[in-house]
Amino acid sequence: MTDRRTETDAADRKPDLIRPTDAEARDLARGLVATARTGALAVTDPASGHPFVTRVAVGHDGGVPLILVSMLALHTRALLADPACALLLGEPGPKGDPMNQPRLTWISRAEPVDKTAHRDAWLAGHPKTRLYYDFPDFRMFRLSPVEGHLNGGFGRAFRLTPGDLVAG
Amino acid sequence: MTDRRTETDAADRKPDLIRPTDAEARDLARGLVATARTGALAVTDPASGHPFVTRVAVGHDGGVPLILVSMLALHTRALLADPACALLLGEPGPKGDPMNQPRLTWISRAEPVDKTAHRDAWLAGHPKTRLYYDFPDFRMFRLSPVEGHLNGGFGRAFRLTPGDLVAG
Repeated sequence: MTDRRTETDAADRKPDLIRPTDAEARDLARGLVATARTGALAVTDPASGHPFVTRVAVGHDGGVPLILVSMLALHTRALLADPACALLLGEPGPKGDPMNQPRLTWISRAEPVDKTAHRDAWLAGHPKTRLYYDFPDFRMFRLSPVEGHLNGGFGRAFRLTPGDLVAG
Repeated sequence: MTDRRTETDAADRKPDLIRPTDAEARDLARGLVATARTGALAVTDPASGHPFVTRVAVGHDGGVPLILVSMLALHTRALLADPACALLLGEPGPKGDPMNQPRLTWISRAEPVDKTAHRDAWLAGHPKTRLYYDFPDFRMFRLSPVEGHLNGGFGRAFRLTPGDLVAG
């Protein structure tokens, strides 16, 4: 009987697993981008084709994430070989259940940008990166949005379009 | 002159970018696995071939990470289509520079395991998952190690073998 009941529970939860996107979901996603200082960047390792994930420093330009990465790093070489990537934003807080805290998967194609244009805003948010910001092996990428997967906590999953993710 | 100097700096840093693995690096990596409660799991979306990353609950079995994931989730379907994945462990702390805090990229192939064998240990570490642990759509995977990329802070990068990652 237990198996029967839990299978029904799973089926019951399935139809409304993804909720219709509303203003609250859009605001939550945009807030996660605006306040992010770090994130987990997923790329494809060009040598092996294997997924790879690493911590990166994150800023934003008008609500679109920016990352500052070293050419010496595997993930930067990966982005130059294939710009398809995904960035997880919303680091777990020190209190509460991290699986019930909001986070956003920002599915993207990375575009190299001229970091000199973003220098002041970036350094205001990441003062410690001043030590290496101007090193020529550090490059900046803009993570153009493809789709967002927002998890606002249990039972609060949304799929967001680029228009939902970035205010027009 | 500034360009010339920073280029030399970058070149100087390159040869020793990856340090020889020592006991301290192995202990740091194993400690990150043993204490992890969550991580960022990177997979390849089977529909698009695009990288995807999401937060997952993490435990371990003898130093090898375990994850508990729902069959309703994209990342679980991705693992069943292609077990190649990577897990970022070592969530940023509330204080200090998160880019200078230790983290480990656990490159892996995921193997489905029988979650009933890990029930007591998992629920001791993740009491809130008791609500759904027994749901049939929740599956457990063991993330067999392929390679570890440890970043112990600035200038402290290591590549770890499966033997380095898991005590024999």
